[in-house]
Amino acid sequence: MIHLSLIGIGTGNPDHITLAGVRALREAELILLPRKGEARSDLVDLRRLLCRQLLDETALTRVVEFDLPRRDGRDDYLGAVDDWHAAIAETWHEQMTQRLPEGGRVAMLIWGDPSLYDSSLRIAARLKGPEQDSGMALEVEVVPGITSLQVLTAEHRIPLNVLAEPVQITTGRRLRERGWPGDAASVAVMLDAGGAFQTLAPEGLHIWWGAYLGMDKQCLIDGPLAEVGPAIVERRAALRERHGWIMDVYLLARTPLLPGPIE
Amino acid sequence: MIHLSLIGIGTGNPDHITLAGVRALREAELILLPRKGEARSDLVDLRRLLCRQLLDETALTRVVEFDLPRRDGRDDYLGAVDDWHAAIAETWHEQMTQRLPEGGRVAMLIWGDPSLYDSSLRIAARLKGPEQDSGMALEVEVVPGITSLQVLTAEHRIPLNVLAEPVQITTGRRLRERGWPGDAASVAVMLDAGGAFQTLAPEGLHIWWGAYLGMDKQCLIDGPLAEVGPAIVERRAALRERHGWIMDVYLLARTPLLPGPIE
Ligand SMILES: C[S@@+](CC[C@H](N)C(=O)[O-])C[C@H]1O[C@@H](n2cnc3c(N)ncnc32)[C@H](O)[C@@H]1O
Ligand SMILES: C[S@@+](CC[C@H](N)C(=O)[O-])C[C@H]1O[C@@H](n2cnc3c(N)ncnc32)[C@H](O)[C@@H]1O
Repeated sequence: MIHLSLIGIGTGNPDHITLAGVRALREAELILLPRKGEARSDLVDLRRLLCRQLLDETALTRVVEFDLPRRDGRDDYLGAVDDWHAAIAETWHEQMTQRLPEGGRVAMLIWGDPSLYDSSLRIAARLKGPEQDSGMALEVEVVPGITSLQVLTAEHRIPLNVLAEPVQITTGRRLRERGWPGDAASVAVMLDAGGAFQTLAPEGLHIWWGAYLGMDKQCLIDGPLAEVGPAIVERRAALRERHGWIMDVYLLARTPLLPGPIE
Repeated sequence: MIHLSLIGIGTGNPDHITLAGVRALREAELILLPRKGEARSDLVDLRRLLCRQLLDETALTRVVEFDLPRRDGRDDYLGAVDDWHAAIAETWHEQMTQRLPEGGRVAMLIWGDPSLYDSSLRIAARLKGPEQDSGMALEVEVVPGITSLQVLTAEHRIPLNVLAEPVQITTGRRLRERGWPGDAASVAVMLDAGGAFQTLAPEGLHIWWGAYLGMDKQCLIDGPLAEVGPAIVERRAALRERHGWIMDVYLLARTPLLPGPIE
């Protein structure tokens, strides 16, 4: 029997891990750290740092790094993702059964929270699915972590929702395709390859943007979309050029989020 | 100058506080604990417990409990909330200036995350607003915390969003008024006074429900809405009766959230 803990670790600030996360990490016999290619090595570094800081020398935990298969870039996005998840599930399976042939406690450090635009739960489900028929006795536990959206709102000191109103969390791709989602008074956008907000009529919209949230190189911009939109596009390109990669997220709202400024 | 930390503490499990939350709590000179009436005293108890567990004996922190003004039940919801926030802001102002006349570090323990259907940021903004003109030099810091929604998804071991799809977070009131929000493949419902999902045609919908999340009395139900909907309504009423109060939250989705079951 494998006990797999998917531990949300926040998105850059090592102090955003919870006490439950620290405990789950320390109780693991094996921690699997996937490597995702060179550009975003900062993200693997944070995981290494957390392991170093939180596991004491007496810990019996083995920390093992392994390479993830890559997603093919074909047009059929969902199909490519499906194949990719199957390949990752196979790699996980291999790592776990090779390193813990008798079973035991495995932990994986999940960026932000495992619930939000993250595939680890989907991959874990495959390890048990009939298709794979891995025959692995697997128990999954999820330890919640702070999402990038929560760091965005915390750093801007704003709520996510307009008072008593719904909020939509969406992707850059969807915002481009469908525009402002009808029912929401505020919209959070993740996984934007760059400036999807430019497809909206900016009048009356306010934006709160953040990149590298929780990290030393964190960058925040906010203001009326018409005014700061172009500056965000420019800054994003420059930062991406400088660091070789970028992750950013933003919140848009039509009505004020707060009765007055907090500064 | 008052430095006010709004610290997200999670929603029942004391281990859901982050290392940053623990530090902010310990650095405070004054912790303000609002009391909200008898029924939900469990929620105040958790805050007391956190203070006891996390502040060591040598801590110089003063923990002060105070009573919150009550919201009047008039029909004009937004108007009543507005007056109520103004009254709370006055109470905060009084507590802070009386107890820290020279200024200093104040902390408040916020249920879940301060960004999600919570008014503390709105109240803090009033302390600085021109209306109030409190003249208080105030610096606000937000320390993110685990939301009830994240505990819901963690305990059910599900993602919040369908793969690559938008998710809407809304209230029971809105779900009743407007039905399923057009653009979302999954919908999270908070602040439901009870069974707003009954207004939806249940065919093809799945629900993941949780009450008292993170607490000993936590209760989870999931399944096709048509099958488990009535059971949830019944269980909710019974639990509410037994404990004198209830807080619950749920996620609805049309398409599967995972390729297979995680059990
Ligand atoms: C695959 S999703 C994972 C989200 C993650 N599970 C979470 O809870 O935030 C990646 C997207 O999250 C956002 N993101 C993650 N970390 C971020 C950070 N440190 N700063 C800004 N955005 C971030 C970006 O929108 C990015 O495209
Ligand atoms: C005023 S909102 C505050 C939400 C909080 N800021 C958060 O981050 O979860 C209160 C609503 O949150 C949800 N909620 C909060 N704590 C909960 C718990 N322990 N179990 C279930 N639902 C909870 C319920 O929907 C409740 O009506």
